[in-house]
Amino acid sequence: MIPRYSRPEMTAIWEPQTRFRIWFEIEAHATDALAEIGVVPKDAAAKIWAMAKDATFDVDRIDEIERVTKHDVIAFLTHLAEIVGPEARFVHQGMTSSDVLDTCLSVQLVRAADLLIADVDRVLAALKTRAFEHKLTPTIGRSHGIHAEPVTFGLKLAEAFAEFSRARARLVFARQEIATCAISGAVGTFANIDPRVEDYVAEKMGLAVEPVSTQVIPRDRHAMFFAVLGVVASSVERLAVEIRHLQRTEVLEAEEYFSPGQKGSSAMPHKRNPVLTENLTGLARMVRSYAMPAMENVALWHERDISHSSVERMIGPDATVTLDFALNRLAGVVEKLVIYPERMSLNMDRLGGLVHSQRILLALTQKGVSREDAYRLVQRNAMKVWDSYQKSGTATVDFLTELLGDPEVRAALSEAEIREKFDLGYHLKHVDTIFRRVFGDA
Amino acid sequence: MIPRYSRPEMTAIWEPQTRFRIWFEIEAHATDALAEIGVVPKDAAAKIWAMAKDATFDVDRIDEIERVTKHDVIAFLTHLAEIVGPEARFVHQGMTSSDVLDTCLSVQLVRAADLLIADVDRVLAALKTRAFEHKLTPTIGRSHGIHAEPVTFGLKLAEAFAEFSRARARLVFARQEIATCAISGAVGTFANIDPRVEDYVAEKMGLAVEPVSTQVIPRDRHAMFFAVLGVVASSVERLAVEIRHLQRTEVLEAEEYFSPGQKGSSAMPHKRNPVLTENLTGLARMVRSYAMPAMENVALWHERDISHSSVERMIGPDATVTLDFALNRLAGVVEKLVIYPERMSLNMDRLGGLVHSQRILLALTQKGVSREDAYRLVQRNAMKVWDSYQKSGTATVDFLTELLGDPEVRAALSEAEIREKFDLGYHLKHVDTIFRRVFGDA
Amino acid sequence: MIPRYSRPEMTAIWEPQTRFRIWFEIEAHATDALAEIGVVPKDAAAKIWAMAKDATFDVDRIDEIERVTKHDVIAFLTHLAEIVGPEARFVHQGMTSSDVLDTCLSVQLVRAADLLIADVDRVLAALKTRAFEHKLTPTIGRSHGIHAEPVTFGLKLAEAFAEFSRARARLVFARQEIATCAISGAVGTFANIDPRVEDYVAEKMGLAVEPVSTQVIPRDRHAMFFAVLGVVASSVERLAVEIRHLQRTEVLEAEEYFSPGQKGSSAMPHKRNPVLTENLTGLARMVRSYAMPAMENVALWHERDISHSSVERMIGPDATVTLDFALNRLAGVVEKLVIYPERMSLNMDRLGGLVHSQRILLALTQKGVSREDAYRLVQRNAMKVWDSYQKSGTATVDFLTELLGDPEVRAALSEAEIREKFDLGYHLKHVDTIFRRVFGDA
Amino acid sequence: MIPRYSRPEMTAIWEPQTRFRIWFEIEAHATDALAEIGVVPKDAAAKIWAMAKDATFDVDRIDEIERVTKHDVIAFLTHLAEIVGPEARFVHQGMTSSDVLDTCLSVQLVRAADLLIADVDRVLAALKTRAFEHKLTPTIGRSHGIHAEPVTFGLKLAEAFAEFSRARARLVFARQEIATCAISGAVGTFANIDPRVEDYVAEKMGLAVEPVSTQVIPRDRHAMFFAVLGVVASSVERLAVEIRHLQRTEVLEAEEYFSPGQKGSSAMPHKRNPVLTENLTGLARMVRSYAMPAMENVALWHERDISHSSVERMIGPDATVTLDFALNRLAGVVEKLVIYPERMSLNMDRLGGLVHSQRILLALTQKGVSREDAYRLVQRNAMKVWDSYQKSGTATVDFLTELLGDPEVRAALSEAEIREKFDLGYHLKHVDTIFRRVFGDA
Repeated sequence: MIPRYSRPEMTAIWEPQTRFRIWFEIEAHATDALAEIGVVPKDAAAKIWAMAKDATFDVDRIDEIERVTKHDVIAFLTHLAEIVGPEARFVHQGMTSSDVLDTCLSVQLVRAADLLIADVDRVLAALKTRAFEHKLTPTIGRSHGIHAEPVTFGLKLAEAFAEFSRARARLVFARQEIATCAISGAVGTFANIDPRVEDYVAEKMGLAVEPVSTQVIPRDRHAMFFAVLGVVASSVERLAVEIRHLQRTEVLEAEEYFSPGQKGSSAMPHKRNPVLTENLTGLARMVRSYAMPAMENVALWHERDISHSSVERMIGPDATVTLDFALNRLAGVVEKLVIYPERMSLNMDRLGGLVHSQRILLALTQKGVSREDAYRLVQRNAMKVWDSYQKSGTATVDFLTELLGDPEVRAALSEAEIREKFDLGYHLKHVDTIFRRVFGDA
Repeated sequence: MIPRYSRPEMTAIWEPQTRFRIWFEIEAHATDALAEIGVVPKDAAAKIWAMAKDATFDVDRIDEIERVTKHDVIAFLTHLAEIVGPEARFVHQGMTSSDVLDTCLSVQLVRAADLLIADVDRVLAALKTRAFEHKLTPTIGRSHGIHAEPVTFGLKLAEAFAEFSRARARLVFARQEIATCAISGAVGTFANIDPRVEDYVAEKMGLAVEPVSTQVIPRDRHAMFFAVLGVVASSVERLAVEIRHLQRTEVLEAEEYFSPGQKGSSAMPHKRNPVLTENLTGLARMVRSYAMPAMENVALWHERDISHSSVERMIGPDATVTLDFALNRLAGVVEKLVIYPERMSLNMDRLGGLVHSQRILLALTQKGVSREDAYRLVQRNAMKVWDSYQKSGTATVDFLTELLGDPEVRAALSEAEIREKFDLGYHLKHVDTIFRRVFGDA
Repeated sequence: MIPRYSRPEMTAIWEPQTRFRIWFEIEAHATDALAEIGVVPKDAAAKIWAMAKDATFDVDRIDEIERVTKHDVIAFLTHLAEIVGPEARFVHQGMTSSDVLDTCLSVQLVRAADLLIADVDRVLAALKTRAFEHKLTPTIGRSHGIHAEPVTFGLKLAEAFAEFSRARARLVFARQEIATCAISGAVGTFANIDPRVEDYVAEKMGLAVEPVSTQVIPRDRHAMFFAVLGVVASSVERLAVEIRHLQRTEVLEAEEYFSPGQKGSSAMPHKRNPVLTENLTGLARMVRSYAMPAMENVALWHERDISHSSVERMIGPDATVTLDFALNRLAGVVEKLVIYPERMSLNMDRLGGLVHSQRILLALTQKGVSREDAYRLVQRNAMKVWDSYQKSGTATVDFLTELLGDPEVRAALSEAEIREKFDLGYHLKHVDTIFRRVFGDA
Repeated sequence: MIPRYSRPEMTAIWEPQTRFRIWFEIEAHATDALAEIGVVPKDAAAKIWAMAKDATFDVDRIDEIERVTKHDVIAFLTHLAEIVGPEARFVHQGMTSSDVLDTCLSVQLVRAADLLIADVDRVLAALKTRAFEHKLTPTIGRSHGIHAEPVTFGLKLAEAFAEFSRARARLVFARQEIATCAISGAVGTFANIDPRVEDYVAEKMGLAVEPVSTQVIPRDRHAMFFAVLGVVASSVERLAVEIRHLQRTEVLEAEEYFSPGQKGSSAMPHKRNPVLTENLTGLARMVRSYAMPAMENVALWHERDISHSSVERMIGPDATVTLDFALNRLAGVVEKLVIYPERMSLNMDRLGGLVHSQRILLALTQKGVSREDAYRLVQRNAMKVWDSYQKSGTATVDFLTELLGDPEVRAALSEAEIREKFDLGYHLKHVDTIFRRVFGDA
C-alpha cells in the first residue's frame, strides 16, 4: 500500500484512529452486554460510553505504552483507562486480546468489501454504458492474436461486464465469509465470558457469530477472502491487457484518455502510452500474490499462534487498498476510453475478406464437399490473400475474387451463394441474445 | 499428479478415454440439436449415436492423427469419422474446438467437484464421530504453543468440523462457478451455430449456459475454482499440523494409526512417525501453489489465446487428484486416530495449576484490585510455579498452595474462593453451546 | 509433468529404475568405504557390486514390498538382498534412509541441471545465429506497445541471448547449490557411520560433502534450485511473448514455422497461430509456481520432517521436465522462426516519420530552444501525423514535410538539418558495440 | 512495508529524498560525461553540480509538478531547473526516463543488498557465538517431531550458520545480478547518447554496464534478486520455527528473551510466548510471496512496458525492508536466546534410553543377527519402554534393563556390550569434524 496507489476512502479503514474506534466499540458493546447479564455495573458501562464515545484516541500515547508493554491491546486499554477513569476496569472482563483484534479485523474487512463491491458497481456501470454505445460497432475478433471473425466492441465490453458481475458475486461471498465476530476468551471456551456477550456484540457490529473460535477466528475465512481478491484482480488484469492491446500502434482501436498537459514520454512527444492499464497489470500481480501468504496463514498451531498477524497487518491494507485503487482506475479508464470505430473497420478490412473463410468452409461442407476437401479449397485461396497481406500490410488479393475464380469452389457454390457469405450482419445477428443474457431485458 | 497420491475415482475423470467420451457426448448432443432445428439430417444425428455410443475410442490412433495435424479436436473428429462413417461430416457443424474442449473441461471439473464434496463429507463424518466421542475429554488449549486454558479434544475436532463445513460450501460455490457450457463458435457470436444448440447441450450435460463466451469460457471461473481448492487444501494442512503437534514425543496426546508390519524408521525401531499428516502438509503446499498459474491464466489475449491450456492440462488433474487423495487420507487419519485422554490430563496437570491463572486474575479484579496489581500478584506466584516446571518438566511448586500463602492475594480472596477457581468443569460449561452451534441439535 | 510436454532425456532421470540404480550406487560405494575402514568385509562389498551392478531392479517387486512395510528404502534393501544374497546385510550399515534418498535427489537434480544447461546452450546457439542474420535488419522499437525509435531485429535477439546467458549462469549456480552428498546418519551426527564414508561416496557420485546435515540435506538448497528454474522459465516467457506479439495479425513481423499438414484452426483455414509460444507462456506459469512450495519446504521441523517429500516427488520431475521441454521448444521456435524484414520496414514507415521525433526535439534544444518549447513544437507537428495515422492506419501526413513547413521550427533548424534527422543509420551506429558486449569479439 | 517492521537504515534507501539524490547524481555524472565528449559545455556540467550538489529536493514541489505532467522524471527535471537555472537544459540530453529510473533502482537494490548482507553477518556472528557456547550441550535430535538420537544444541546452530552462510552467498549473487547501469536511450540503441556516458556513470555509481538494455534493464535480474530474498526469508522461517518448537510448553528447551515489563498475555500472566519467532514466520511468508510478481514482471512487452513499475514501487521497499527487519530481529533472538541445557537432558532422558535403540540394532546385525530379526528384537523391547512413556510422560520401563533381560538379545550381546551402547559420548564424537567443516579451523 503506497499513497500513489491509494484512495482515502479505503486507507481510512486501516488508520490507527479507525482501528482504536472499532476496538472501543467492541469493548463498549461487550461491557453493555456484561452489564445486562449482571457481571459489571450498568453505571460503569454507561460511563464508558459517555467518556469515550466522542474521544479521539491518542495514537502516539498508545504507541508509547506499547513500547513498554509490547502488547497493543493492553496499551489501548491503559490509554482508555486514562480517558474513562476507574470504570475502565470493567472493560475487557473475561475477554482476550484476540476477541477485540479479530472482531475488529472482521469489521475492517467487511467495510473494505463494501467499498470493493461499490467499486465493482462503478466498473459495471461504465462497462454497461460503453457496451450499449458500441453494441453494434463491428470489430475483428482475435484468437491467438490473429484475426478470426467479426464481433462487436460492445460484445467485448459485455464479456467484461459478465466477468465483473461474477467478481461482484465473489466479493459478496468473500464478505460473508469474513463477517463474523468472536468474543470467546483465551481458548474459545467462553470460560470467563458468557456467549451472550458475543451474540450482543456481533449484532451491534453487523456480524454473525463465529460458531467455534479458538482465541482466534479461523484463518481459512481470511484465506478465502484474499483469494477472492486475487481472482478479482486477475479480471482487472484481463480488461487492462485487452485495452493495452487495442492501443498498440499497429492496432490503435482504442486509447486511454490523454489529458491536455500530460506528457507521454520525456523523449518522444507524440507517444500516448497506455500507462494506466499497464499500471493495472502490475497492481493485479500484487493483489494476486497476497493470496499465497493468506493461505499459508491457515495452519496456525493448536488454538492459535500469531504468525498470521504480521501478514495481515501488511496484506489487510495492501490488498484492499490496491484493489480498490485498481478498480477505480479501471472504471475511469473505461468511462473515458477513446474508441475508434473507423479504425476497427479499417483493421478488419485489411485482410481482404479472410474473416469470412469459415463461412465458405461451412457452405462447402453443406454442399457435400468433405471436410478435408473443403478445408483444402478454402486454404489455398485464403493463403494467397494472406500472403499479399503479409507482404504489404493490406491485402492486395481479394478473397471473394479468388473464390469466385476457383473452379472447384464454383463447382459447389454459385456466385450469389459465395457473395452472401461476406455479409457482416451475419455475425451480428445474435448480439441481442447475448446482451439480453448479460444485461437482462433492461 | 503421481500414482502414489492418486485415487482411481479421480484419475478416471482425466483419462483420455473419459475425455473423448465427453467430447463425443457434446458433439452428439449438439448434432441432435442441429438436427432439431433443421441444420443437419435427423438420420445423421441418430446414426452418430448409434455407431459411437458404445464405442471405445482408440487413444493411440487419435494420438497418431494428432502428430500429423497438431490439433487434438481435428484428430478426434477424424477418428470419429472412422467409426461413424460419412455422417460424421454433420458433426461439429459451426462449432469451434473450444466449444468441445471448454465444455468438456467444465464437465470434468464438475465431476471432480462432486468427488471432492463427497470427500469432504467423509472428513466431516469422521470429525463428527470423533468429536462426540471426545466431546468432554479435557485437554489443554495452547496459544503460541504455550499452555493456556483447558478445552476439550472434542472442541478441537468441532473447530475442524466447522472449518470443513465451510470448505464444503466453498466447493459447492466453486462447482457452480465452473458449471457452464459454451457452444458459441469461433469468437462467441453464434455466427455459425444457433444459440439453441448451446441451450440444448448445456441441459444435457448438466451445465448452465455461459452468458457470453469468446471462443472460450472465461478463465476467471477456473481461477476461482482452483483458488478454492487452494483454500480447502490449507484447511487440510491445518488439521494435519495439529495432529503432527499432538504426536510429537513430548506431547503424545494422539497418534496416527500404525498398522502391524509398518516400519517407522530403518534405523530406530521404536519410532512411530506422523508421516501421513506430514505428507498432507506437503500435498497442501502443492494444491495451494496451483492457484497462482490459474489466476495468471485469466488475462488471455483478446477473444482467447491458448496459454491457459498447458496450465490446465497439468493443474486440472494435479490439483483435483491431489486434493481428493489428501481429503481421503485425512479422513482415514481422523477415523483411526489413536487418542490418549490420560496423556492429555497428565500434560495439563504438569503445570501445577497454572492454567487457572486467568480465573484468579479476574477474581482479584472483581474484588476491586486494579488490573495492574492483580496482574502483578498473579504473575509473581505463577512464575514460581513456572520456574519449577521449567526445571523439572513437572511443576514441583503448586499454584494453588502459593496463592493460598500469599497475604496480598488472601486479602482479596478467601481460601474457598481461591479453591473454587481450580474447577475444570468451569471451562467446559459451554461445550454444549458450541456443539449445538456446530453440529445443530442432532 | 505430462507426456505431451516431456522429453525422454529428462523423464529418464525420474524413472524408478534410474532412482533404484542411483540408490544402489550410493549404497554400494558406501559399502566400499565401510570395507576400506574395516567395518564390513571387503569380500562382501565386492560381492554386492558383482551381483547387482548390472541388475535390473524389479520395480513392481519393490512396490509390492513397500505396500507392506510402507517404507521405500527398506523395500529396496529387501529386494536388493534378494539379488545379492546374505552379504546384503552389510549394506546400509549405520546409514539412514535419507542418506540414500537425499543424495539420490542431489544426483538427479544435478543431472537435470546439466540437461537444462545444455538446453540453454541450444537456445543460445539459435539466438546467436539468428541475431547475426538480422544484426542490421531495422525494425521499430516499441515501448508500451507504441512505436518508439528504430532498433534492429538482431538487437532483440541479442537481448534474449544476454538474458539466456544469465539464465545459464543461474543454472550453474543452482547446480552447485544442489550438488551435495549427505551420509551422516539418523540425525546427522555420524554416530554410526564414519564421515569418511560420506567423503568417499560424495567423490564417487560427483558431489560435494554437505557440511552439516540433519538426517536430511537442508532444503534451502532445493528452494534456491527451484527458484532459479522459475526465473529461467520467466525468461522463456519473455521471449515467447515477444514472438506472440510479432505474429499478431496487425504486426506480422515474424511467425512460428508452420509445417505442411499442420492445421491452425478447425474453423478458419487461413489462420496460423503462435501456439508454440502461447504454450510456452503457460508452461512458464507452471515452472514459476513450483518455486512457492519449494520455499515452503525449507522450514522443516527440528532435524527433519517428511513434508518436503511429497512436494519434491511432484515438482522434482514436473519442474525439470517442463522447463527442459520448454527450453527445447523455444530453441526450435527460434531456429525456425520465419522473419519478415520487409514487413518490419513497412510497419515502421507507417507512422510517417514520427519515429524520428526525438531527434528533432534534441536538435531544437541544442539550438537553444527551451525544453518546454521544443516539446510543444514537436508535439504539434507530430500530432497531425499521428491523427492521420490513427484514422487510416498509414500516415497520410508526413512528419518531415510538416516540420519543414513550420516557421517556428525553421527558425531554429535549416532544411538540411531537419532532413539529416531522418537518417535510419543514425540509430544503428552502435549495434556493433552492443553485439561486441553481448557476443564478444567472435 | 510498515513502520512496525522497519528499520530506518533500510527505509532511508526508499525515501523520496534519497531517490531524488540518486537521480541527481546519475544526471549530473551523465552531464559530466557529455561535457567530456563535447556534447554539452563543461561549464554547464560544473554549474549543475555546484547548484544542486548540496540541495535538498522539494518533494512536495516535485509531486505538485507531477500531478500536472503525470510524469515523474519530467517533474524532477523541472524542479531541478528551478534549482540549477538555465544550464539545466543540458541535463538528460539524449537520455530517457528509464535510464535514470532503472539505474537508480539498481543503486537502491545494491544498497539494500549491502544492508542485508550485513544483517546476515550479524545473524552469523550470533549463531557462531551461541554454537560454540553449546557445542557440546547434548539435546535430543528429532525427526518427524519424534525423539531420534542425541545431537548437541551447538550442532543445531551450526546447521543454521551453514544455512545463513549460503544465504549470504546468495545475497552476494543477487547483488551482482542487479548491479548494472543503463544509459542507452529510448530503445537501448544509444542513438542519442554515446555509450561512453553509460560507461562513465556506471563506474561512478559503482555498477557494471548493462550489456544490452531496451530502454529498461531486463527484469530477469530483478526477478532473481527477489527470488533470492524469498529463499533467504525461508531460512529465517526455518530457524524461527525451530525456536518456536523449543519454546512450546512440553519442550521448553529454549525461550526468547522476555524483558521485564513485557506482558505475554492480557489474560494469562504466566505465559511467555515466542512472539518474535512467530512474527518472523509471518514476515517470511510475505517476503517469499514477493518473488511471484517479480517473476511475472520479466515478460515485459517488446522493448518495455511499465507494468513492472507499480510492482517494484511496492516490493522494492516491502521485500528489502521486511527482510532487513526480520534478519535483525532474528539476530536479536539468537543473541539473547535463553537456553536450558538441563531441560534438554531431562527431555532426552524421559524416554528411558530409547534413543540408543539404533546402536543396539547395529550391534545385533554386526553379531550376525539378520536385519529383520534385529529389528524385531529391538522393537519388542523398545515398545515396552515406549508404552510406559506414552502413559506417564516419563518412561517407567528402562530400555537397558529390558535388553539385559531379553535372552535372545543376550544370546548375541554381552552385558558389557549392551551397556557400552548407552554412552552419550558416542554420538558427540564427530561434533568437532562438523564444526571444522562449518566454521573452519578458527
